[in-house]
Amino acid sequence: MSDRLDRQMAFLAEADRLKGIERATRVLGGARFENSAEHSWHLALYALTLGDHAPEGVDRDRVIRMLLLHDLVEIDAGDAPIFGSHDASTTAADEEAAARRIFGLLPDDQAAELRMLWEEFEAAESADARFAKALDRFQPPNQNLASDGGSWRDYGVTVETFEARIGPPIARGAPTLWDWLLPRVRAFLSRL
Amino acid sequence: MSDRLDRQMAFLAEADRLKGIERATRVLGGARFENSAEHSWHLALYALTLGDHAPEGVDRDRVIRMLLLHDLVEIDAGDAPIFGSHDASTTAADEEAAARRIFGLLPDDQAAELRMLWEEFEAAESADARFAKALDRFQPPNQNLASDGGSWRDYGVTVETFEARIGPPIARGAPTLWDWLLPRVRAFLSRL
Ligand SMILES: [Ca+2]
Repeated sequence: MSDRLDRQMAFLAEADRLKGIERATRVLGGARFENSAEHSWHLALYALTLGDHAPEGVDRDRVIRMLLLHDLVEIDAGDAPIFGSHDASTTAADEEAAARRIFGLLPDDQAAELRMLWEEFEAAESADARFAKALDRFQPPNQNLASDGGSWRDYGVTVETFEARIGPPIARGAPTLWDWLLPRVRAFLSRL
Repeated sequence: MSDRLDRQMAFLAEADRLKGIERATRVLGGARFENSAEHSWHLALYALTLGDHAPEGVDRDRVIRMLLLHDLVEIDAGDAPIFGSHDASTTAADEEAAARRIFGLLPDDQAAELRMLWEEFEAAESADARFAKALDRFQPPNQNLASDGGSWRDYGVTVETFEARIGPPIARGAPTLWDWLLPRVRAFLSRL
């Protein structure tokens, strides 16, 4: 049991580094960039609060678990901003290697359990993963709306780019959230 | 449904402010102070990972929900460092008022649900709340060990103070974690 706990604690100590991974979105009305640890917390709170808007059959607690660990691979692979240009296949390979290393710090049974949950999230095929992905796409625009445009200004994002890049995953996993968000983003971006 | 979603989104926007509440512990080997949002994320990950060490009958997912929201009252009441001197009854009254205001942003049924979960955490009587409290006391010493003493140095904490102030809640809610932690903290503090 003690070796088991040593490995769990090594994983939790490593997880601390997610607090140093900077994202493209801002917090506190634009005061600074958001880090991936506080982003993950905020998303888990979104899942806790917005369960009404999940499609039939979604397990809210499982979605929360998925969101708590969905960005851990960024400790090695970094955050790939959604409006940035990056090679998707390189990012995927980096994240696979990161998942092997980081979840591999845990006892084998837990490493397998958490890695499978992360892979389910990445595949975005199950109902739980589609809802989790929808929330992961839904929170940043709300941060941008609260930060005078945030990453939209930095990347020169238009309404068309926004709808094409952000719309499908939100509309697929949480349609009522997309219906709520779209008019707000249109109104904001049309004034830029 | 739309007014319901408006209220949920007002709560989630307000929650962003937890990212600006600074704690006494440090992150990333001592690089900066931790904020309460990333602390809440880390604790939820502790609960996800350390379920083996929870007493019989603890509901891991419920503990995670509790930890996600346990510090939201700090948006109004601030963080009261464990080794600091503060008036416990003033803090409790401030936190009660904060809970009324912040959870009150939600639709009434959710406001009641989340506030009850927070009050259960504060009371630290149920098995779930005792385990959640134990984790809330167990994570900061690990941050201090990884930050060359962190808040222990700032507050001149001795082994005796540490054991008296931090020991009981951890030993009560998660005895195997206390057994793991204590020799490590003793070894560190005896060298200061
Ligand atoms: Ca991400």
